[in-house]
Amino acid sequence: MSDLHLSWVESANSAETPFPLNNLPYGVFSVGDGLPRCGVAIGEMILDATLLEGEGLIRMDGAPLFDAPSWNKLMSRPRADWDALRARLIDLLAQDGDPALKDNADLRARALVPMEGARLHMPFAVAEYTDFYAGRHHASNVGTMFRGPENALPPNWLHIPIGYNGRASSVVVSGTEIRRPWGQLKGPNDDAPRFAPSQRFDIELEMGAIVGTPSDGPITVDEADSHIFGYVLLNDWSARDIQAWEYQPLGPFQAKATATTISPWIVTAAALEPFRADTPAREVELLPHLRDCGPMLYDIDLSVTLAPEGGQAEEIARTNYAEMYYSAAQQLAHHTTCGCPMRTGDLLGSGTVSGPERGNRGSLLELSWGGKEPLELSGGGTRSFIEDGDTLGLHGAARGNGFTVGFGPCTGKVLPALPDPYARG
Amino acid sequence: MSDLHLSWVESANSAETPFPLNNLPYGVFSVGDGLPRCGVAIGEMILDATLLEGEGLIRMDGAPLFDAPSWNKLMSRPRADWDALRARLIDLLAQDGDPALKDNADLRARALVPMEGARLHMPFAVAEYTDFYAGRHHASNVGTMFRGPENALPPNWLHIPIGYNGRASSVVVSGTEIRRPWGQLKGPNDDAPRFAPSQRFDIELEMGAIVGTPSDGPITVDEADSHIFGYVLLNDWSARDIQAWEYQPLGPFQAKATATTISPWIVTAAALEPFRADTPAREVELLPHLRDCGPMLYDIDLSVTLAPEGGQAEEIARTNYAEMYYSAAQQLAHHTTCGCPMRTGDLLGSGTVSGPERGNRGSLLELSWGGKEPLELSGGGTRSFIEDGDTLGLHGAARGNGFTVGFGPCTGKVLPALPDPYARG
Repeated sequence: MSDLHLSWVESANSAETPFPLNNLPYGVFSVGDGLPRCGVAIGEMILDATLLEGEGLIRMDGAPLFDAPSWNKLMSRPRADWDALRARLIDLLAQDGDPALKDNADLRARALVPMEGARLHMPFAVAEYTDFYAGRHHASNVGTMFRGPENALPPNWLHIPIGYNGRASSVVVSGTEIRRPWGQLKGPNDDAPRFAPSQRFDIELEMGAIVGTPSDGPITVDEADSHIFGYVLLNDWSARDIQAWEYQPLGPFQAKATATTISPWIVTAAALEPFRADTPAREVELLPHLRDCGPMLYDIDLSVTLAPEGGQAEEIARTNYAEMYYSAAQQLAHHTTCGCPMRTGDLLGSGTVSGPERGNRGSLLELSWGGKEPLELSGGGTRSFIEDGDTLGLHGAARGNGFTVGFGPCTGKVLPALPDPYARG
Repeated sequence: MSDLHLSWVESANSAETPFPLNNLPYGVFSVGDGLPRCGVAIGEMILDATLLEGEGLIRMDGAPLFDAPSWNKLMSRPRADWDALRARLIDLLAQDGDPALKDNADLRARALVPMEGARLHMPFAVAEYTDFYAGRHHASNVGTMFRGPENALPPNWLHIPIGYNGRASSVVVSGTEIRRPWGQLKGPNDDAPRFAPSQRFDIELEMGAIVGTPSDGPITVDEADSHIFGYVLLNDWSARDIQAWEYQPLGPFQAKATATTISPWIVTAAALEPFRADTPAREVELLPHLRDCGPMLYDIDLSVTLAPEGGQAEEIARTNYAEMYYSAAQQLAHHTTCGCPMRTGDLLGSGTVSGPERGNRGSLLELSWGGKEPLELSGGGTRSFIEDGDTLGLHGAARGNGFTVGFGPCTGKVLPALPDPYARG
């Protein structure tokens, strides 16, 4: 495992910062009333990539990459360009690199913006969003609750990464407030459905893989791995009661379309390279086109915090991305088997990342066992599902030798449902 | 019901042309090696909207509408602008309208392009694609085959329009050849799944509703109706065997992502206005937010043709869009209940439009009753599902008093599966 690489940006040189020179994640930021711009996190600062491109310090062949507030243009370029930009950024920010920025006080003052006080925006335009169900522990837990332990895993689960198409328009960046949804609900003992606010609103702790390289037909797992530009944390907000009524026979729909929150920084696959991890042992052998061909998960510690209205955030779950049964590369390969075209900006949710123990569960549904065993909060009170005013946060970090590759928090505060969305005019 | 409106474009004045002055559907076309441009179908000609805008004959406030080969810019504008453009086009093309184009021989020669010989492209950029399951006969037929007649309709079916998110990247325009997909298959008597070409590849005869006006929260059925810009025919190609293995518990995924073909002309809601039709009587009352508030289906005759390789096309099914249980407005309203943002260019498939009789069924699955009663082709041979080389066509027309509002065909030829998509390098 590699060591901390030193930068002349001092705040990037601690073991605790999520944004050392080893990371260099990509985001979009604005300051005050300024327009959103592309930026790179380094320590406590943001390097203004749009400005640096304008000044000629980073330059790729062809059209400008950073004239729009999104990283899609870079993502759509060949992988060699991804590597070239990363190498150039490292050179400009390393203690012993190109002094063009380091030794130019005026440019430095303009190009480095304190992260505190900057506003973060969606780092890329989501083309389409797909959500998987690829965590063994999560699928077993949910299946046990709904179908009993004998039928916990559907028959196809060990053979293909089960997924469904989600709603790209609902993806929002960390910090966006989430309005509790209304929906059609019908409990098992109700005579008829009713339209009401969701009472079982929940989180799902996931990783999101971002497709850079488009494809127009079936691709291998190896190819899929090389098409992934980077990763974010992803909270797939889920209305369990809406889902229970709607999901047969065609899957979740409105239950999952209120919002999906992602963390604001794209951590590149390149930055995660030292943390590659194998998928778990296979219970049944996968068909050749989905078979593992190298470590394609990552050793990323994940946790969930909950802060009640006006209260302190406390950790309610802790797990690791390497718990997943299928890698994002396997999911992406499966996604293309029928010839489905994939595009730059496609976002693939991993599925809820739970671990083997109760404290490792990535949803309140699992943590409270469907509401039967409410979670005790250390600040007082209990939770079966989200209450109005709660702020939920996801956190992720890969830990190297004296350094951390972090994601920045992925948070959202849940607001009360609107009184009645149809009582208008 | 209104009568034929006469145009100085003579070929637009027959009772049989799908494109009289009453219609004026919007498409994107190119001629020879020329770039794709926005066009309007009139009789046997295409009116070049990009050229007319450049010449100042159609002009809306603000930025140009037709400088890109898609109708999304117009679709994103207020509904009043949709009406203003339509009124202006009618004025320019009517026998007794503004003579600015009619009497300018040079401009007329440049602005009117013969449809024969022009190539048609996707008329709009699909933002996201949602497919519903809102045909009572189709749902009953499929449910009966899979779960028996007692459990044909899922319990939620009469209360909400069941839908799932599809894959926008797979939507293609009529004429695009469709490659038979591979997928993971497991028959009920198989020990293990295998990866193989789909053997039960099928069509679904649907209408597609196109969202013009975006929304950011719950909208009423009335509002939803006014947000719909227009309609196309839609063939939701479906691999039944891939679906059978993958669809539990999260719905269809790769079975539906090979391709979805749409007809090339957007028939506007305005052109369909004289053909509004009620939904069928409700078997159980809908909750207030989904209740019917006016006729929001349309009386559109629909048919399916099949032409074997080298053979003649023959009609294999005939039905009507007014058979649907839910209107597109109800589907769109339901789509927003949880707060899901809808965007300009969102495409909503109606679900398969089947009628009460065998000859009214909009899929081969239903026509051949799951392959148990193969369809006899009049040219010889039978069909349970699509065979390689078959060209499938959807056709749609609303019939007025001496005129027809047509959609243009929605066709696709099915090519053999690739030998093995993973036997590369």
